[in-house]
Amino acid sequence: MIQKPTLLLNEAICRSNIEEMAAKARRNRVVFRPHFKTHQSHEIGRWFQEVGVTGITVSSLEMAQYFAADGWTDITLAFPVNLLEIDGINALAAKIHLNLLVESVTTIQFLSQQVSAAVSLFVKIDTGYGRTGIEVDNTALIDAVLNEIALQEHLSFAGFLTHAGHSYSARGTAQIAAIHQDSMTKAVALKTKYLAKYPDLILSVGDTPCCSRMEDFSGADEMRPGNFVFYDLMQHQIGSNRIEDIAVAMVCPIVANHPHRNEVLIYGGGVHFSKDRIVDSTGRTIFGQVVDSTEEGWGAILEGAYLKKLSQEHGTVHVPDAYLERFKIGGTIKILPIHSCMAANLMKAYLTTTGTKISRL
Amino acid sequence: MIQKPTLLLNEAICRSNIEEMAAKARRNRVVFRPHFKTHQSHEIGRWFQEVGVTGITVSSLEMAQYFAADGWTDITLAFPVNLLEIDGINALAAKIHLNLLVESVTTIQFLSQQVSAAVSLFVKIDTGYGRTGIEVDNTALIDAVLNEIALQEHLSFAGFLTHAGHSYSARGTAQIAAIHQDSMTKAVALKTKYLAKYPDLILSVGDTPCCSRMEDFSGADEMRPGNFVFYDLMQHQIGSNRIEDIAVAMVCPIVANHPHRNEVLIYGGGVHFSKDRIVDSTGRTIFGQVVDSTEEGWGAILEGAYLKKLSQEHGTVHVPDAYLERFKIGGTIKILPIHSCMAANLMKAYLTTTGTKISRL
Repeated sequence: MIQKPTLLLNEAICRSNIEEMAAKARRNRVVFRPHFKTHQSHEIGRWFQEVGVTGITVSSLEMAQYFAADGWTDITLAFPVNLLEIDGINALAAKIHLNLLVESVTTIQFLSQQVSAAVSLFVKIDTGYGRTGIEVDNTALIDAVLNEIALQEHLSFAGFLTHAGHSYSARGTAQIAAIHQDSMTKAVALKTKYLAKYPDLILSVGDTPCCSRMEDFSGADEMRPGNFVFYDLMQHQIGSNRIEDIAVAMVCPIVANHPHRNEVLIYGGGVHFSKDRIVDSTGRTIFGQVVDSTEEGWGAILEGAYLKKLSQEHGTVHVPDAYLERFKIGGTIKILPIHSCMAANLMKAYLTTTGTKISRL
Repeated sequence: MIQKPTLLLNEAICRSNIEEMAAKARRNRVVFRPHFKTHQSHEIGRWFQEVGVTGITVSSLEMAQYFAADGWTDITLAFPVNLLEIDGINALAAKIHLNLLVESVTTIQFLSQQVSAAVSLFVKIDTGYGRTGIEVDNTALIDAVLNEIALQEHLSFAGFLTHAGHSYSARGTAQIAAIHQDSMTKAVALKTKYLAKYPDLILSVGDTPCCSRMEDFSGADEMRPGNFVFYDLMQHQIGSNRIEDIAVAMVCPIVANHPHRNEVLIYGGGVHFSKDRIVDSTGRTIFGQVVDSTEEGWGAILEGAYLKKLSQEHGTVHVPDAYLERFKIGGTIKILPIHSCMAANLMKAYLTTTGTKISRL
């Protein structure tokens, strides 16, 4: 029985999300190398194995070690190499096929001195997101980086890796498509330019909005979406998914109510949901959206019922008059999270709607 | 050696914050019952014992169990009772003196049927924050609650508990003082009204801004500040503390740099800092503030250098030209957090500036 804030996972929805993305990768004849940063779970990782996934993406050495411990032998650490973790990188690279991410000559020179096992390097290319990576038109730096890699015995060039993360500010399919086409056009042109010299180079792309909504990945060799495994309200607002594709919901005890101001106080705060928020279509800042509670898990959104404020352990839920009777002290309430990656990271475990506890890193 | 994002703790600053608050409580002849939700550490809890603290405050049953396991025998669980955890509450109440928080007849009636050991109940009073509690002027409900408590053998009335959390929206001493005076006036009037009938009733108050900046707590019997143990940039913006009173800083590896746009990319994201943010005096939204790195830990703020964006593991730091040379790939950067409670919750451990690792719940 639920006693405290618990992250419910609908396994059927989650597996369906996985299967749909795997099917899209097959249709496009690209390798499906999912990012595991969202779920960070051995158990859920095995659901990907069941649809044929053999290589994965992570964003920290710790995650790479965690999944290697469960038998994954082909891992891309899609985060600019953290030189301070070189000992752990070497230990892992001695055991599995490890792809690292580089974007500077400095990092490659350090690796050339410090790496003791073979590693493949993806060069991080910025096609417009602006977070990190070599700008796609900076071929002077790309050449310098590739030449530096070529000098080193343990290092090999795997390909170019892009993340069109600016798709997160898109709203709707047309905007996602514009970003996708622009990013793909640039990335494929870059690949084409270097293909003669590096005929095996891989073009790796992937962000959840583009991978979810777009159909054409011509020119790419692999895709690395992550969040789609659960989806959430933020991705829904972007246009990546339907509400019914969201695979996780937080269930929280109700500890007080204030019907005269249409509020229910829950045990469930920033340490459970994270402080991620969205401004909804009516202009309200919301931290989650209340859903109908069903025997099998949860159902549709209860219109107008939303998580309006978070402190450390407290959450304040706005509940319209029509639903006030449902939410009594001693009961629970189910809430879709804004950002499933962050909520799952805080919760550290899942409870499936069929009652199985699933652990994670 | 630092290899990944690490929460540094300056023990001397932390102990000084503890000592100052303990001294203020002594001057006011109120019991110092600090809230331990910020640090959640056995080790740091013992620093409070050294200044004479014997009773503490927490905000979850899990925290209460954690501190009881380290020998604390007088704990207030300052969160409206979560009826779903009644078994754990009973087990704990059988071992220690446990104060619970109530604000409804429903909860008291449930407790009267389910509680198997003696517990003391604080009645939560809302003096204007509006998060939860019985509104201070709703004496009909207060009477109903007190009468319900009086009927039950295992339950006793401990007193009134207030949290003037609206002080978090104050800016500067004058605004903090206005909230403090208003909240104290209301709370003390309530106490006075019920003192004849309940001569031992305790008036418990406490929020970090008021406890940090105010001097007069006449009429209160105990204070329960929590965040002051570390302070942070949010409390600094309110006016609770000086920058040099902040006892924690995140140290993060530098993994890429983009000097042409004055940016340094760090390993350090939302899963380390939390997504708490403030708008600083120049109108910028910031997620942290860069400080000078010293041999002993950290020093003053580097003006204009701040954490501008967070993804899951990535942080983007804006660095003015004058400081660009300091921050190289393979090095680290030290950053004051916006909200120390949330960052400490994510980091799960502290490393003191003298090299001791301190664990937490």
